Amino acid sequence: MEFQTELTGRLTEIEAMIKQYLPVEEGYQKTILEAMNYSILAGGKRLRPMLMIETYRLFGGKAKIIEPFAAAIEMIHTYSLVHDDLPAIDNDDYRRGKKTTHAVYGEAMGILTGDALLNFAYETAAKAFSMEADGADVGRAFQVLTGKAGIYGMVGGQVADVESEGEAVSMDRLSFIYRLKTGALIEAAMVTGAVLAGASVSEQQLIEQVAADIGMAFQIQDDILDVTSTLEVLGKPIGSDQKNQKATYVALMGMDKAKEKAKELFAEAMDRLESLSVKNPFLSELLRALVRREK
Amino acid sequence: MEFQTELTGRLTEIEAMIKQYLPVEEGYQKTILEAMNYSILAGGKRLRPMLMIETYRLFGGKAKIIEPFAAAIEMIHTYSLVHDDLPAIDNDDYRRGKKTTHAVYGEAMGILTGDALLNFAYETAAKAFSMEADGADVGRAFQVLTGKAGIYGMVGGQVADVESEGEAVSMDRLSFIYRLKTGALIEAAMVTGAVLAGASVSEQQLIEQVAADIGMAFQIQDDILDVTSTLEVLGKPIGSDQKNQKATYVALMGMDKAKEKAKELFAEAMDRLESLSVKNPFLSELLRALVRREK
Repeated sequence: MEFQTELTGRLTEIEAMIKQYLPVEEGYQKTILEAMNYSILAGGKRLRPMLMIETYRLFGGKAKIIEPFAAAIEMIHTYSLVHDDLPAIDNDDYRRGKKTTHAVYGEAMGILTGDALLNFAYETAAKAFSMEADGADVGRAFQVLTGKAGIYGMVGGQVADVESEGEAVSMDRLSFIYRLKTGALIEAAMVTGAVLAGASVSEQQLIEQVAADIGMAFQIQDDILDVTSTLEVLGKPIGSDQKNQKATYVALMGMDKAKEKAKELFAEAMDRLESLSVKNPFLSELLRALVRREK
Repeated sequence: MEFQTELTGRLTEIEAMIKQYLPVEEGYQKTILEAMNYSILAGGKRLRPMLMIETYRLFGGKAKIIEPFAAAIEMIHTYSLVHDDLPAIDNDDYRRGKKTTHAVYGEAMGILTGDALLNFAYETAAKAFSMEADGADVGRAFQVLTGKAGIYGMVGGQVADVESEGEAVSMDRLSFIYRLKTGALIEAAMVTGAVLAGASVSEQQLIEQVAADIGMAFQIQDDILDVTSTLEVLGKPIGSDQKNQKATYVALMGMDKAKEKAKELFAEAMDRLESLSVKNPFLSELLRALVRREK
């Protein structure tokens, strides 16, 4: 089957699965339940749940236990966007052509919706403790997910990024931001998938490294496209990083080195993945598509 | 030993324990680690960790596994205060005589600090999966804590409360707000303590009911004190509920009925607690002090 067809099919499955885990809009707290569902259903590539599920399949996982975790990581990603968009942080009223959560529900509800989504992510993942699956270490999966989403993961990267605005940023600091802000949740997705499928500790470590390389390459590709793409292809104005005087890999290292680095990281990730005895061709194609994307 | 002396001793132990679980202030994300520690160490009665630990002891718990959960519930309580104080919600610059988190670190960092505390709470509690304790169902404890802190617990109550401002509030809605906003985290504390000590399901249910009654009585006592206390005793201006036209139990039912209800709920909680074959006299004294408090 062609990759694009397969991708569309799996995306449809993931959308349906996520919907099953969303709250029913009723009760005195109805407004926030609506705002949560609005935020989650506003679109997105569902990249993190897809990476989690495909890594789970790579290691032979076949049970439903992956579902609450896959829904949870999309909720975590969504909460981070809802809070990023708030007036006190990025102050964005639109995302992917739709009004952002605080623009629709107000600032107080924007804050509370992010809180609710983060908490509900873990409440949802905790359903896995009542599910059966051979070799699935749910406690360990919780440790990975909470760790990668927090101050030594996504939130830590977000803070370092917010504090870098208008500052001269070193390569070391930029790598830290990329690794935590973008990379950590990709690592969480893939490692959690491996853990729940019962992969060995050394397999978990190998997957963590693959995810780290892919996360970094993904972010560098973002920097490249902001310079080389067009408004038509990218669907948003190009050159915004330079306009906002944002430190990027391209700005710090130059375009040639950036392209070289992204290529190198991708090759390294693929070599590692191919060293495993287990295979998931769709996962490999998916990782390639992420790094080689044109938009 | 006198209750007050014992209380002070246990509070000191809890303070020391919580500190062990706080992040070290280093790295590119240092600011948020400082802000988290500032928020947690700004004071507080440590009521929720104390209730958790004493309920754990009631059911014979003796292991260190209770510690990460006790630290976690204080982090959850603290994040809710940090976000409540934000300009878009209650807009408070002072709490217990100290500057609030956003007043010191700015609004963006106030939002991110709350996020970081909530996530770090679960990251901290997840350490329990690597600890040994007979009969402790850590997965179940996670389900209880995440459930009571979220949209069907504390956050749900918070939303219903925010939306009630300036509205005519029914007794049904007010009870919902009290049960969720104040009660849910007290229930989480006591039930988690029971679960981690290996209490039976019927014991867990009994404790949940005790906690629900105490939570409600605690909140009604709050309403009473806002009318009957003095600035000197309470340490904050009295009459603020009436001034803010806030719906309270006293406003809806009258002072006599409010006092009667608090007394009734407390008696019911004590009867239930005494029906257990296990005893923790300090816990009973603590619950009495919470409901009968003068400030």
